[in-house]
Amino acid sequence: MRYAVLGTGVVGRALGSKLVALGHETMMGSRTAANASAREWADSAGSLASEGSFGDAAAFGEVVINATSGGASLEALTMAGADNLAGKTLIDVANPLDFSRGMPPTLSVCNDDSLAEQIQRAFPDVRVVKSLNTMNCDVMVDPSLVPGSHSVFVCGDDAGAKAQVVGLLASFGWPNEDILDLGDLIGARGTEMFLPLWLRLWGATGTGRLNIKVAT
Amino acid sequence: MRYAVLGTGVVGRALGSKLVALGHETMMGSRTAANASAREWADSAGSLASEGSFGDAAAFGEVVINATSGGASLEALTMAGADNLAGKTLIDVANPLDFSRGMPPTLSVCNDDSLAEQIQRAFPDVRVVKSLNTMNCDVMVDPSLVPGSHSVFVCGDDAGAKAQVVGLLASFGWPNEDILDLGDLIGARGTEMFLPLWLRLWGATGTGRLNIKVAT
Repeated sequence: MRYAVLGTGVVGRALGSKLVALGHETMMGSRTAANASAREWADSAGSLASEGSFGDAAAFGEVVINATSGGASLEALTMAGADNLAGKTLIDVANPLDFSRGMPPTLSVCNDDSLAEQIQRAFPDVRVVKSLNTMNCDVMVDPSLVPGSHSVFVCGDDAGAKAQVVGLLASFGWPNEDILDLGDLIGARGTEMFLPLWLRLWGATGTGRLNIKVAT
Repeated sequence: MRYAVLGTGVVGRALGSKLVALGHETMMGSRTAANASAREWADSAGSLASEGSFGDAAAFGEVVINATSGGASLEALTMAGADNLAGKTLIDVANPLDFSRGMPPTLSVCNDDSLAEQIQRAFPDVRVVKSLNTMNCDVMVDPSLVPGSHSVFVCGDDAGAKAQVVGLLASFGWPNEDILDLGDLIGARGTEMFLPLWLRLWGATGTGRLNIKVAT
């Protein structure tokens, strides 16, 4: 499977490297082709890795991962191009964190809407699945970094796209019983609004290598 | 210790009954004394249980628990009386859920503020501790209902009040290692904003007897 990873930060690089390690051709997209961070990643990540503009990557990928910062995601996806994205599964791992008012960050959208829903409305032909945004990127791609059983969530309006993401999560090392389907994309409000608690948990435990396990 | 429980719903009754079972004199407060639900609870819960107005209860309790619905909490506490509350530990277990716009509920305050902070600002002489609002009331008072280890949070600006609440949680059956101190009262934004995810988890698991365990 060919993947596009939009965003060149630590989240995009972690996901891109994992995808390459799993044998997937992966193009990292950024605002401009030959972005220094994307180039460095592509040079170091092996022959399956490449880089280009958001549009190049979106055209290349059969599945697209939005790993841009939440406040820039809609613009980045617009630059990626609705035609390049149409019909594809888009895994939205971004959080709409707004640091402009200082710490703790607030969310630029929440409560009666979410970034994932904004993306879905702006790109109705894309199959948006929210996932992986409730943890640090090293845990996303290697759940064994957190001992024991812990949970990852998926939500979205397209059952086929969710099944595709569940399969990808399994290939990342997530046991099936730890992958929870939260239903339709409105569930993204819940996982995005978890971020303020996650940040506090990081402070309380002293490590970003944390996650939550849903116990019943 | 004498407790006041403000609110006569399932949460208030569960907490009140647990406090009585632990040997605490407990007065349930409501908008008007002799509220039918409070009277029924007091009649059935044993000789340590009593009921009265919000003001009666707040005057009676050495520790006050806010178990009113979040949208009514500030009004209820105003009726309880700042003088009756002054200097006391107030355990805020309420969530500012707003069902007026249909399902899923939204929060009437979130993101850059929280109900707990609103209460603290309105009653600066009260020592507000946010706790227990991240789970169903039957789990609050009997954590063994959820198998294995799982977490309860405390946050607040007064270390002594938090220690008092930690002690109460231990008496409810919470192991010390499962009680996480999230720091100051701003942490209440995180625990209140967890509610949309909690509601989805309820839907996904099919049971309200659920909780999250923080894994590191």
